[in-house]
Amino acid sequence: MPERGLLIVLSGPSGVGKGTVRKAIFDSEETDFEYSVSMTTRGMREGEVEGVDYFFRTRDEFEALIDAGQMLEHAQYVGNYYGTPLEYVNQTLDTGKDVFLEIEVQGAMKVKEKVPNGVFIFLTPPDLAELKSRIVGRGTDELAVIEERMEVAKAEIEMMSHYDYAVVNDQVELAVERIKHIIKSEHLRVDRVIHRYNKMIKEL
Amino acid sequence: MPERGLLIVLSGPSGVGKGTVRKAIFDSEETDFEYSVSMTTRGMREGEVEGVDYFFRTRDEFEALIDAGQMLEHAQYVGNYYGTPLEYVNQTLDTGKDVFLEIEVQGAMKVKEKVPNGVFIFLTPPDLAELKSRIVGRGTDELAVIEERMEVAKAEIEMMSHYDYAVVNDQVELAVERIKHIIKSEHLRVDRVIHRYNKMIKEL
Repeated sequence: MPERGLLIVLSGPSGVGKGTVRKAIFDSEETDFEYSVSMTTRGMREGEVEGVDYFFRTRDEFEALIDAGQMLEHAQYVGNYYGTPLEYVNQTLDTGKDVFLEIEVQGAMKVKEKVPNGVFIFLTPPDLAELKSRIVGRGTDELAVIEERMEVAKAEIEMMSHYDYAVVNDQVELAVERIKHIIKSEHLRVDRVIHRYNKMIKEL
Repeated sequence: MPERGLLIVLSGPSGVGKGTVRKAIFDSEETDFEYSVSMTTRGMREGEVEGVDYFFRTRDEFEALIDAGQMLEHAQYVGNYYGTPLEYVNQTLDTGKDVFLEIEVQGAMKVKEKVPNGVFIFLTPPDLAELKSRIVGRGTDELAVIEERMEVAKAEIEMMSHYDYAVVNDQVELAVERIKHIIKSEHLRVDRVIHRYNKMIKEL
């Protein structure tokens, strides 16, 4: 039976660039983990692909899955559901592969309740001005929506203390490198590997 | 005032190759930490240099420093004292530099009592046969000394559970790379960096 994989959770305030960093990680070499595609009820944006960026579902379909206990976490954000299908995650961890989740802060905290030994990484903006410009810069939303996002972002940054690691997203390539270091390092934690050594100790 | 550096402690059973790995780390690029030279009462071996490999002292000199509270840790091992001068370590951490200690297992546990937020890395042999051959293979000691070392090594491997990370020394270059990942990753731990974000949160 293979050693169970690590559940790696990348989150952070809205507009910090989680999606960009996640894509860069999966486009880079040396990644031997699986990306867990999230499910959402929000509309598909231009260029997005069903089953790649998200599984796009109606509210009725999403709520039926919640009721069936089939979501590892789910949250409402700016009027839409976002969530992680449970079955896919568990099956992948059991095969020994790491699973990588990129999710909103609300959802990450729910995952932490269910999987406390996951690796929780908080992506942070280099500074406030940068965060503001990223939230506003998307340019597809009304002012009220932008202001709501800023309030949400404040509350989200305050959630950092519940995470294991903080990674500054000053440059995408640097953020990706830091996240890779964290994942490699977490695989070396004594509490994750000590069972491998039990046999060695007995034989000595 | 700079952020305080990390105290990084590399330890592991005798004969596992701690000294070789430590030297390879300091010979490699990208190392911006200080090596804390240990003090010992054992005889200088061929090729060793005072103040580089160890500070070599008499038992009387060493015990005087212990009594003066000037050792971060000290231990007796196969009849000799080994220890870490306290003042050097504290001064270096205060300047914001990381300090790297390569010490015996007994000493590492004493450091952990005094500096619980240090990073404790346990270097492990790939397997028992390899460990035995390393202990015997030094070829400079009598059988009784070798057997004593094996007993010490067993007790030391059982100490692994008190460490943060376990790094297999299968190849020196790989062990060095793993240790570098750990150090980079530890600098990103939320509990080490959260104070940097307090100001940002207040300004939001």
